Amino acid sequence: MPLSMYDVTVPAFLRAFANLSAILAKAEAHAKATGLDPNVYLQARLASDMLPLTGQIQRAGDTAKGCVVRLGAVENVSFPDTEANFAELDARIAKTADLLRGASASRLNDAEHRKVEMKFRDRTVTFDGRDYVAFYALPNFYFHVTTAYDLLRHKGLEIGKADFIGAFDRPETSAGP
Amino acid sequence: MPLSMYDVTVPAFLRAFANLSAILAKAEAHAKATGLDPNVYLQARLASDMLPLTGQIQRAGDTAKGCVVRLGAVENVSFPDTEANFAELDARIAKTADLLRGASASRLNDAEHRKVEMKFRDRTVTFDGRDYVAFYALPNFYFHVTTAYDLLRHKGLEIGKADFIGAFDRPETSAGP
Repeated sequence: MPLSMYDVTVPAFLRAFANLSAILAKAEAHAKATGLDPNVYLQARLASDMLPLTGQIQRAGDTAKGCVVRLGAVENVSFPDTEANFAELDARIAKTADLLRGASASRLNDAEHRKVEMKFRDRTVTFDGRDYVAFYALPNFYFHVTTAYDLLRHKGLEIGKADFIGAFDRPETSAGP
Repeated sequence: MPLSMYDVTVPAFLRAFANLSAILAKAEAHAKATGLDPNVYLQARLASDMLPLTGQIQRAGDTAKGCVVRLGAVENVSFPDTEANFAELDARIAKTADLLRGASASRLNDAEHRKVEMKFRDRTVTFDGRDYVAFYALPNFYFHVTTAYDLLRHKGLEIGKADFIGAFDRPETSAGP
């Protein structure tokens, strides 16, 4: 069984979200234990024109969701960016993970040459499915997950690379045929 | 032609390194133009126990190199961590990219079930090649590339997501058979 479009996307996204949820739980627990205002974490930014933690998590979620939607593996569901606390961010991650679990593995695997049109600020780019995954979806997804981690490290949360990489078991998926 | 182990690794690594080189060139040019000590960038850290920019680039390089070496696509070459300025970091990226260009696509593609043993601080984990790529090599590679970008953004360099994602053409590779 060769590597598939599904292999490098859905299980990897689910794993990263499980890791991210555990990291956010540590941040929330630390804020509670020390009386820190949770917004010190939630609104933290590395630069004034970069998204805060909340926005990084919303964009990580939408990049994963956009990937399976654009590749025709599941219908889109719009998630408004209204999260204002840890519980709501965790729910956002959970509903994104649910949508990913419902993605069709076979449709993803058939999408290697599907045309994916992406509109950016200054241009529209047409990828085939394979390049879209390797050159856009994965780097952009890990960009936002890493920046969420980096923000919390920068704010002094005691987490390490093991929290980012996570457990090494294959996440459960219940993808349809 | 389905997605392959090669597709999601070597061309993606080369693309990210090309983007990273261009970002470092902007950092160097900005330091020169403003008289800023280049070490303000090179030694920047997001937390006292995280690697500085130089270390993030060394680890990004070694993660990519380790991926093709562990999957049997090329012989290892050891690169000592001696880089102390932008020119040396760029040379480190260039020699890593050269090694990646020499990786065998067919050997990479045959390595989906190759056992990869990784020693971590507290445990040794055995992956198959596919899980190693999807769950370790890609997330860890993008972790270090993103953190390099985040460090420079945090230090005020005027770069944006377009610099991170880069041009949307497929990088030239000259992989052997």
